[in-house]
Amino acid sequence: MLGSTHGTLTTDSRRARVIACGEQPGPAVHGRPAEVDDLDVSGRPLYCDVPDLDRLFRPESVAVIGASDTEGRPNTGVTRQLIAWSERVGARLHPVHPSRTSVFGIPCSACVADLPEQVDLAVLLVADPLPVIEELAETKVKFAVVFASGFAETGEEGAAAQDRLTAAVERSGMRLLGPNTNLNAFERFRDDLDGPAIALITQSGHQGRPVFALQELGIRLSHWAPTGNEADLECADFISYFAERPEVGAIAAYVEGLKDGRAFLLAADRAARRGVPVVAVKVGRTETGARTAASHTGKLTGADAVVDAAMRQYGVIRVDGLDELQDTAALLARAKPPRADGVVVYSISGGTGAHFADLATEAGLRLPALSEAKQAELHQWIPEYLSVANPVDNGGHPVGDWRGRKIIDAILDDPAVGVLICPITGPFPPLSDRLVQDLVDAAERTDKLVCVVWGSPVGTEPAYREVLLGSSRVATFRTVANCITAVRAYLDHHRFVSGYRSPFDEAARTPSPSCRKAQALMRPGQQLSEHAAKQLLRAYGIRVPREQLVTSAAAAVRAAGLVGYPVVMKASGARIAHKTELGLVKIGLTSASQVRDAYRELTDIARYEDVSLDGVLVCQMVERGVEMVVGATHDELFGPTVTVGLGGVLVEVLNDTAVRVPPFGEEQARDMCAELRGRALFDGVRGRPPADLDALVEVVLRVQRMALELGDELAELDINPLMVLPRGQGAVALDALVVCR
Amino acid sequence: MLGSTHGTLTTDSRRARVIACGEQPGPAVHGRPAEVDDLDVSGRPLYCDVPDLDRLFRPESVAVIGASDTEGRPNTGVTRQLIAWSERVGARLHPVHPSRTSVFGIPCSACVADLPEQVDLAVLLVADPLPVIEELAETKVKFAVVFASGFAETGEEGAAAQDRLTAAVERSGMRLLGPNTNLNAFERFRDDLDGPAIALITQSGHQGRPVFALQELGIRLSHWAPTGNEADLECADFISYFAERPEVGAIAAYVEGLKDGRAFLLAADRAARRGVPVVAVKVGRTETGARTAASHTGKLTGADAVVDAAMRQYGVIRVDGLDELQDTAALLARAKPPRADGVVVYSISGGTGAHFADLATEAGLRLPALSEAKQAELHQWIPEYLSVANPVDNGGHPVGDWRGRKIIDAILDDPAVGVLICPITGPFPPLSDRLVQDLVDAAERTDKLVCVVWGSPVGTEPAYREVLLGSSRVATFRTVANCITAVRAYLDHHRFVSGYRSPFDEAARTPSPSCRKAQALMRPGQQLSEHAAKQLLRAYGIRVPREQLVTSAAAAVRAAGLVGYPVVMKASGARIAHKTELGLVKIGLTSASQVRDAYRELTDIARYEDVSLDGVLVCQMVERGVEMVVGATHDELFGPTVTVGLGGVLVEVLNDTAVRVPPFGEEQARDMCAELRGRALFDGVRGRPPADLDALVEVVLRVQRMALELGDELAELDINPLMVLPRGQGAVALDALVVCR
Repeated sequence: MLGSTHGTLTTDSRRARVIACGEQPGPAVHGRPAEVDDLDVSGRPLYCDVPDLDRLFRPESVAVIGASDTEGRPNTGVTRQLIAWSERVGARLHPVHPSRTSVFGIPCSACVADLPEQVDLAVLLVADPLPVIEELAETKVKFAVVFASGFAETGEEGAAAQDRLTAAVERSGMRLLGPNTNLNAFERFRDDLDGPAIALITQSGHQGRPVFALQELGIRLSHWAPTGNEADLECADFISYFAERPEVGAIAAYVEGLKDGRAFLLAADRAARRGVPVVAVKVGRTETGARTAASHTGKLTGADAVVDAAMRQYGVIRVDGLDELQDTAALLARAKPPRADGVVVYSISGGTGAHFADLATEAGLRLPALSEAKQAELHQWIPEYLSVANPVDNGGHPVGDWRGRKIIDAILDDPAVGVLICPITGPFPPLSDRLVQDLVDAAERTDKLVCVVWGSPVGTEPAYREVLLGSSRVATFRTVANCITAVRAYLDHHRFVSGYRSPFDEAARTPSPSCRKAQALMRPGQQLSEHAAKQLLRAYGIRVPREQLVTSAAAAVRAAGLVGYPVVMKASGARIAHKTELGLVKIGLTSASQVRDAYRELTDIARYEDVSLDGVLVCQMVERGVEMVVGATHDELFGPTVTVGLGGVLVEVLNDTAVRVPPFGEEQARDMCAELRGRALFDGVRGRPPADLDALVEVVLRVQRMALELGDELAELDINPLMVLPRGQGAVALDALVVCR
Repeated sequence: MLGSTHGTLTTDSRRARVIACGEQPGPAVHGRPAEVDDLDVSGRPLYCDVPDLDRLFRPESVAVIGASDTEGRPNTGVTRQLIAWSERVGARLHPVHPSRTSVFGIPCSACVADLPEQVDLAVLLVADPLPVIEELAETKVKFAVVFASGFAETGEEGAAAQDRLTAAVERSGMRLLGPNTNLNAFERFRDDLDGPAIALITQSGHQGRPVFALQELGIRLSHWAPTGNEADLECADFISYFAERPEVGAIAAYVEGLKDGRAFLLAADRAARRGVPVVAVKVGRTETGARTAASHTGKLTGADAVVDAAMRQYGVIRVDGLDELQDTAALLARAKPPRADGVVVYSISGGTGAHFADLATEAGLRLPALSEAKQAELHQWIPEYLSVANPVDNGGHPVGDWRGRKIIDAILDDPAVGVLICPITGPFPPLSDRLVQDLVDAAERTDKLVCVVWGSPVGTEPAYREVLLGSSRVATFRTVANCITAVRAYLDHHRFVSGYRSPFDEAARTPSPSCRKAQALMRPGQQLSEHAAKQLLRAYGIRVPREQLVTSAAAAVRAAGLVGYPVVMKASGARIAHKTELGLVKIGLTSASQVRDAYRELTDIARYEDVSLDGVLVCQMVERGVEMVVGATHDELFGPTVTVGLGGVLVEVLNDTAVRVPPFGEEQARDMCAELRGRALFDGVRGRPPADLDALVEVVLRVQRMALELGDELAELDINPLMVLPRGQGAVALDALVVCR
């Protein structure tokens, strides 16, 4: 049952799927027409239409296939809820059932063909939806929702049934939500709330329940898309659609697995272009989670580090808990963009301020010291012995009178301040009521973000439930941690979107001249020899040491003369791993006699170890630098990925690496290097010169190009070590492993 | 105002303070009598009395100095609260005021000398407490509580006033709580709750408020000690006292700074011996937090990594947020010890289970797969297509009838299961009501831990507020993260205490024979030469290379012959740093002529760089091994500390180190090595042999011995590198830095 995969789950199917999506060119986005053949050099799409889902969420007519009004039948409750929902959205509802003439007093059609009109949406309550889907295809229905389970989530047989469903849908031109979905899209949304809303996407209905319940705390929800098995419509489609909706302030997603990596990135890219934050829980931090999730919806979870990197590249805010999802999405949906990134902590107790400041600073928030002038202003109302530098500690008393509001306004008036956070550990009436009211009033009169952490575990206090939750301007949290997570996400999001340039706009569409040269060197299904692998690198302009492949001791001596002493000699062959451990590398050879001896020794060892050689490499010895690893590999979800890491023995031990999903630009390549724990090595430690970081970045970008152009022909590429020389001197690939697919 | 320190804050004052604490030998603990001169080899106490604080929390008579009943005066409200509290605890209350004959109808004494009886507790509401303390000393009062602020938290002048207060208290034999404390000890505790309670210690009243509020959720609190500036009674005293109280199930502490590191560890040790969990928030993760906290209560925050290690050594559970403090302390106070460490996740939705399992596994909880037999049993009630391996997904329906309880009981009956966790994302009545009731009922009939995560953000649902909070057997959480943190702490705590052996029982009391030899080598205020530093190491049995200090080229050649080729040569002098960068190290010298050349070159460079030499070291060249760093340093809070870390260039870059506070045994020394990110190096990577970990552990323990015996004479000791050779071959200190105080 676990790990089931089938046709539509592989990235190879991308091209077909996206074209299928683009039934007819959708609306232009950013002035750019939809080009269904807009592909990058690896054959992956650079553009994806926004599906028009208006009639899914707001149909004019709905057919309920398998409607029932017999008490005790599960479909009866569902029918009742659909009738109520249809009334609310103003849709005409038509029950369909072969043996009923009416359901809940509404005239019933015997079959799909008998429906009184062409419907926008058909909800299928039947156990076997395939025949109905085929009938619906005739009637030009726009959307079908399938509740039935027993598809890809149950194993191979179910996956095959799901494939048949997908094929039927693709032939018909209709769009399908499900199977294995539920009633969440047809819930009763509160319509008395205004302001920007959260749009919710979930792959498991229960996991969306807490976000939906936010409405009871006054936070508006506009949509809920329970995507189920995603036989057709997938998470990415809803992200794209919601990102275009004016009422949506933030998209919250609970994701177990993705159907298609590129589709998800294109959707995230659309949201980033439009500045709409996407906050997501993505299961799969661990093997256990990945396995359990796969058995739940039959989707791929992907390598977690790659998922994590991909999300960050497109500004998707990944959180772990549903509580963080709620708090972060609610804040991002409603808060106006920050005018400054300075955070001020304001409290009635020095302890509360110190504790908050400690955790906030550790999480990377910036708590600037207020100016002397501002501090003097605050000391008009706050006793001199209390610190008001930031955190601002008012000692309690000033919140009881007119001074309380003055202090808040004075802080918010400071141009260095973008966010005011007031942690309140519990009610202390009447002072806390006044403090809370002042915060709510002050928030009404500013665009700046005002946050309150209501720390009482009780949560029934009127100051919390009535005053704070009654305000749409104050962001209220129950824990310090969630407040910090949300504020950090808020500041990061706005920084990200203000500097965002889509990598898809700059992605290569045609192969480089290197590509043809490189392709001639590839040997399908084989591991290349070190020498051949280095030729591949040279084809892409990556520097390798001067070297010659020789097959005799005399030729080795001649080669050493040409390469220049001292030299390194290595056994070369298609399948040699662990050269160093086997003694198949000799370094620092300074004379012809040493070279001759080394040649004999290497060939002897090779014979002894039963290693087949294509010769011995005589290589230029490269000065010491910073040893790095740069590689490309293939992720099941996203296709090619590029990795950079610290080299040497410690690579294996510390696994200090950074990964990115192409396409990405120079800035991301620099970020990769900056992300490494060992990044200080680049600055030069113990008197060493700073390393040529530009050269490292250039190699990363060239490896990306290789990964994209050689695409699926390249199973694995590893430059290890890449010696990064002192600044201005470049970087040299001393060894490389290439495995062809 | 920041960073104020004064006499009582230094660790040097320890001996005096602890003796002062032990007015008269307290009750025997673990059959061991109080020995006030029980000191370790560094002069730090190995034992601390438990102060008898019964009459502080439950006095028979209370004097209120500065009592008032004039409306509008702050002291009036305080007096009123003290009268109410005295009535509740059954104490006679005596107001003291020079100009009143009665306060709230209670006869008032004019001064302390006029009190009608010798009182247990005096509460001082006066602005200048010192004269009153002196008067109280005459009357043999047991406890004084001082609310006045303006002491060590305000800077040097205040610190001096606080010292005078401390001195007066120490002369008197009374114990003092405060100054800068508040009414928290005299709050109204709920007395209708039973079961093990939380005892609370806070250095900031507001920060204790949420824990106190737990009583409104049905969780019992027995004490609240607001320690304020800790002029006398400190956090450690309350930990010791609470650990001995039968009603206390867990101690929750909010700590900004510690007065004395050793006192804290002795108290934590007592709690660990008795199996009483201590859960603590300790501010000072960052510079900002440490600085702000210091200005708040005038105490030291200590180097955070050292605080963190010290807490772990004694099983103190450190958490970050007050919400975690509440949830973890509540769980640990009330749950019975686990019978197994297996955690089972039970949910009505595969998604909820997958998500929880993912986060729980990442946090280190063990989710064992249930046995085939158990799974078959569960499938009696749960459809076959749902996974019940763990997480157990029931698909929803079985919770609606008798099957729900069967499933829960079957899981709890499994001997591999210690904890059952049921995450519920929100109410779905009537099913959720039944599920919750089944969990509450099942929990009543088992000793095993049953946890529920009530994920709805609303929190007014009857299933949550009445049923779950009404049960003292089910541990209820609002977030998955806090549930995981608390369960992890619960399992860790019981594992820790069941294997706990107090390091104080085995601590060295008398100097080793090495000590005298070593002391002769110390040079107060100086940095020792490399040669002298290595002699110091040899005195403690730490292996150094064969080496000779020479002052001529001819002597160098003779030395090389004795040491054995190849040799390393290094400039030696009292103040040479960065030898390698300056070119003052020559390695791999294989002949007399190379040695002669090297001698000349080293002395030339030294002249050129203006470095004063005491000679040149000719050292044995040591085979390659794993380069480590072992060192000792002095923490302001805890005194000597010992560090082990990865050596070489990467030490500086990656800072992969582990620290411990002495005394600690071999097991902790092994834990230090196991804690390093680069620990896989010890196993041998890339074909290298495994390293001699035993030898490394032995060096760590010997360095601990040096740190303790040389104590305050040793400002800094660094062995860098310590070359750890292949297993069975030992470890050699290749270079060492020793700075004497």
